[in-house]
Amino acid sequence: MRNLIEIAEQQEIVYKGKYLEYHLDHVILPNGKTSTREYLHHPGAIGAVPLLDSGDIIMVKQFRYPTQSVILEIPAGKLEEGEDPVECVRRELMEEIGYEPQTIVHLASVWTTPGFTDEIIHLYLATELRENRAEMDPDEFLELVALKKADLLELLNSGAVVDGKTLLAISLLQLRNIW
Amino acid sequence: MRNLIEIAEQQEIVYKGKYLEYHLDHVILPNGKTSTREYLHHPGAIGAVPLLDSGDIIMVKQFRYPTQSVILEIPAGKLEEGEDPVECVRRELMEEIGYEPQTIVHLASVWTTPGFTDEIIHLYLATELRENRAEMDPDEFLELVALKKADLLELLNSGAVVDGKTLLAISLLQLRNIW
Repeated sequence: MRNLIEIAEQQEIVYKGKYLEYHLDHVILPNGKTSTREYLHHPGAIGAVPLLDSGDIIMVKQFRYPTQSVILEIPAGKLEEGEDPVECVRRELMEEIGYEPQTIVHLASVWTTPGFTDEIIHLYLATELRENRAEMDPDEFLELVALKKADLLELLNSGAVVDGKTLLAISLLQLRNIW
Repeated sequence: MRNLIEIAEQQEIVYKGKYLEYHLDHVILPNGKTSTREYLHHPGAIGAVPLLDSGDIIMVKQFRYPTQSVILEIPAGKLEEGEDPVECVRRELMEEIGYEPQTIVHLASVWTTPGFTDEIIHLYLATELRENRAEMDPDEFLELVALKKADLLELLNSGAVVDGKTLLAISLLQLRNIW
């Protein structure tokens, strides 16, 4: 393999947000020249497909401020410090949709956009869902939507699913004949 | 539908990087309370699966500084100002792999991670590739890999493909029986 590695010679956090950090590093390139690299440090995230015994999938509609639009997505959330991703799935499903999953199966873990962030998202299928509204967060601005397979497939085929993690997770379920 | 919209009442760019802008906005929530929203403005990107007449797919290995690892990906790149995504596919494939596509088919356009950036990535299949090394960028630190279908499927199934856009684009090719 060619030498592709870039070595940091100076590292700086130029802006610290609520949960993101903007890093600006000076690096030595494989050819010995120097350059800068900018990236966002992110705590990592989970996304989970909540599949009811009925076959319906529960999705959420929410306004995503950066996109200035309401997007249909699988439930998702950021990892808290030191939190196990499976525990995060359980917490987010209880908070966002009011269901506690008994079974959580890993689908994939991917870098969301490795050119400018270290965010990794862990995707899961969550089944054997038991209603449990005790932890639901009344301050989340979400609309819940239970979708039958045919209706969700129609949305997928029409291009109406525009969230990367959602399209990936549902595609993996289809490819693996889980759903 | 519930009212989910958040309205900006003050907008600020708190850090301007080489191509990313860190925005910090003050917003009015659907319940009338106020909060802040932070996000990265990104120019948008493309990713393309270059499928040779032989059936091989050309991928690139590169060191992605934010992840501190070498990742196997489909060729991709950021949109230049005012650039048409299809033109960007043509440019990136010539620069990164030295092939000019005669046919470019749209697969999907998705928000990569809508919680904290407005980055949208347009994914394509590129075929009828003609070798054209005139525009290849000698300063890109890339290793090219031509993969046969069976070898790529093995990588996919083993979890070795850890880049979100790559896993999504290849999954869509499989689901649509294009590949």
